[in-house]
Amino acid sequence: MKKNILYAQSGGVTAVINASACGVVETARRWPDVFGGVFAARDGIAGVLDEALYDLAGETAQAIAGLRHRPGGAFGSCRLDLDPYATHRHEYERVLEVFAAHDIGHFLYNGGGGSMLTATRLAQAAADMGYPLDVIGIPKTIDNDLYDTDTSPGFGSAAKYVAVSTREAACDVASMQATSTKVFILEVMGRNAGWLAAAGGLAERDAGELPLVLLFAERAFDAERFAAAVRERVEHAGYCVVVASEGMRDGQGEYLSVRQKSTVRGWTRLGGVAAQLAELVRMRLGYRTHWAVSDYLQRAARHIASQTDVEQAYAVGRAAVELARQGRSGVMVTLRRLTDEPYGWETGATDLQAIADRERGVPDEFISADGFGITPLARRYLRPLITGEAYPPFRDGVPEYPALRHTLRARRLPQYTPRSGDYYGTVA
Amino acid sequence: MKKNILYAQSGGVTAVINASACGVVETARRWPDVFGGVFAARDGIAGVLDEALYDLAGETAQAIAGLRHRPGGAFGSCRLDLDPYATHRHEYERVLEVFAAHDIGHFLYNGGGGSMLTATRLAQAAADMGYPLDVIGIPKTIDNDLYDTDTSPGFGSAAKYVAVSTREAACDVASMQATSTKVFILEVMGRNAGWLAAAGGLAERDAGELPLVLLFAERAFDAERFAAAVRERVEHAGYCVVVASEGMRDGQGEYLSVRQKSTVRGWTRLGGVAAQLAELVRMRLGYRTHWAVSDYLQRAARHIASQTDVEQAYAVGRAAVELARQGRSGVMVTLRRLTDEPYGWETGATDLQAIADRERGVPDEFISADGFGITPLARRYLRPLITGEAYPPFRDGVPEYPALRHTLRARRLPQYTPRSGDYYGTVA
Repeated sequence: MKKNILYAQSGGVTAVINASACGVVETARRWPDVFGGVFAARDGIAGVLDEALYDLAGETAQAIAGLRHRPGGAFGSCRLDLDPYATHRHEYERVLEVFAAHDIGHFLYNGGGGSMLTATRLAQAAADMGYPLDVIGIPKTIDNDLYDTDTSPGFGSAAKYVAVSTREAACDVASMQATSTKVFILEVMGRNAGWLAAAGGLAERDAGELPLVLLFAERAFDAERFAAAVRERVEHAGYCVVVASEGMRDGQGEYLSVRQKSTVRGWTRLGGVAAQLAELVRMRLGYRTHWAVSDYLQRAARHIASQTDVEQAYAVGRAAVELARQGRSGVMVTLRRLTDEPYGWETGATDLQAIADRERGVPDEFISADGFGITPLARRYLRPLITGEAYPPFRDGVPEYPALRHTLRARRLPQYTPRSGDYYGTVA
Repeated sequence: MKKNILYAQSGGVTAVINASACGVVETARRWPDVFGGVFAARDGIAGVLDEALYDLAGETAQAIAGLRHRPGGAFGSCRLDLDPYATHRHEYERVLEVFAAHDIGHFLYNGGGGSMLTATRLAQAAADMGYPLDVIGIPKTIDNDLYDTDTSPGFGSAAKYVAVSTREAACDVASMQATSTKVFILEVMGRNAGWLAAAGGLAERDAGELPLVLLFAERAFDAERFAAAVRERVEHAGYCVVVASEGMRDGQGEYLSVRQKSTVRGWTRLGGVAAQLAELVRMRLGYRTHWAVSDYLQRAARHIASQTDVEQAYAVGRAAVELARQGRSGVMVTLRRLTDEPYGWETGATDLQAIADRERGVPDEFISADGFGITPLARRYLRPLITGEAYPPFRDGVPEYPALRHTLRARRLPQYTPRSGDYYGTVA
């Protein structure tokens, strides 16, 4: 009666997604009477369709423990959602065929809002088709935009990276401003949510300590007001540090920076806001500028991960297995805040359907009246999320990651061929 | 007979330049019979001309010790050299007037090659004018391009940042490559020297572990060969990570990163090397790309400083004071390598004039035959420089820097007015 567990990673990866994998595997191994094997899909749901499943039985306890320290997705992730069930029933049939072939009874899906939609659809398909399956979501996103959870693992570490980098860069610019660079601009991720720009505000311990300008995806960009804010900081402190969401839009709702547009899915790749802002500052104010785009570095920076975040990432993985043990399905693990200082939290669960494909932005009460800073309320919320350091082990100057065997299970099914119009067909 | 010490920071700052300041102050304080006060110029040589000198007597031992952990230039640096002595004698007269007014007998100048030229000229001017002055250079540059020293403090930490970031980003891209990004490009500093691109090679422990392409300032960029190298990595490993010197030039010697006019929103768009390479990869190979520009982050990242680098930065500051105690002048402190493994080193001294305004690039024997990687010899040289971690203290999730009083000495001279054509006049 024991069923196997399948764990999969989905969407953009984080510095701590593997800590969730670690929580899943270590917890499942504690219940050999309840669970069969623990497998991980190669490259997320793509690997499920492709019947590419790693059997983790051969991975040593040391290798699994090492997942706590390794950024990226150790089993591969994917930018792929299942198409809607109503129109693409064959995709769900394939997934459940694969599950049946490998006796999978628990599917733990580690991703963000879009991934939770796929998980919801899969749970519904399994119910429709009479396949006994627990589907449990494990939250993950550096964007912090998942509903019904205090935060999502991955965000705290990216936020810490942004706060620390901003603080360090401020030290640098402060020392150059007399004869050189007066404005430094850091572009951070966040397509529709400015949570990581907000994290730039944690570079200062108290409001006003540093001459910061934060640009939120939630606020329409106004070049005049931005230039005035930068000038005010430079005139007062000698320099200014700007932290800008990549997803900033102008008053017409157009992204300031569109680098690549996909004609297939209407999907847009952002990047380049920092360079544009630097040029604007130079042209309007005449200040020398420098700019940085942290891009993947901010979500891969396991070396400066938040201890809180690592612990929460592990905990949501563990909780997913505990929910599976209780026979729960159609839920996502959540984090519930009990207290602010000291930060007290516990795991919970919420209905997958209620949170799938929704986005939570930075609320108005977290953004200062001028739109360029964070409020004390925001500090109170954000600070515990970046607290504590959890350094990985190093060897020869760089982080050390124990090797995984990555043993694939033997295939039992014919190769999968996507149909014309399937999402999978466009990327595989 | 005791004379005061004046310490000044010059040029682009680093994660560890304040560790050198710490070495200077702590060592000078050990010799109260030899040295008078210890002062620091505000904003480097600009502060000398401006008679803006911090008196460090009031800084607590704890505040001075905290300099070890604080990035940027704690006393301000500057992008300013003195003009040539032959044509701008008045600048040197002003400097020596300021020195005389504050009884300065030892000038410790912490900078790179250009700063050492200023130091050389100043030593010559003092000798010509009969002003008794020890001028001692303290090496500093993330570019690692100073002559006659095994390395320069600042480089090891920037190199560690690049190596660690590249290793982490490789984990990220590896997990996305199946359905999304296949090529990640990191732009690093180094206008004429590719030492930081070389450091990207330390992301792998042994050659061939990761699908890297390093682009050196020392090699003319060839789009065909670059595209072929990237394709080869992607076809073999599924992905590729590129680390590119910002100072790359094409076969005609033109910088790739020239500013480009664009019609996007009427602003000029700065074409960084990373963005250009990403576009090239996308157009020629069709791979999805992501890119990052670390800019100031790489030289300010004290949180991931190399322990070796921090120790060397402190040691060169200490050695400068010891040289001053011996009455030496016209020399720069150097680092001498004694052994590779384990890394053994000691401080030395070299003639300022011999190394001023020269640049040392990555030698041919450090660059692999295809021009896109480093040799075992390069690894042997580079690895010890990034070895060891030296984390700063944290509070509330971000690094903690003890406050300095920054007490300026009372002025004793009239204000300085630069003459038309003076470098100082163009930036002050």
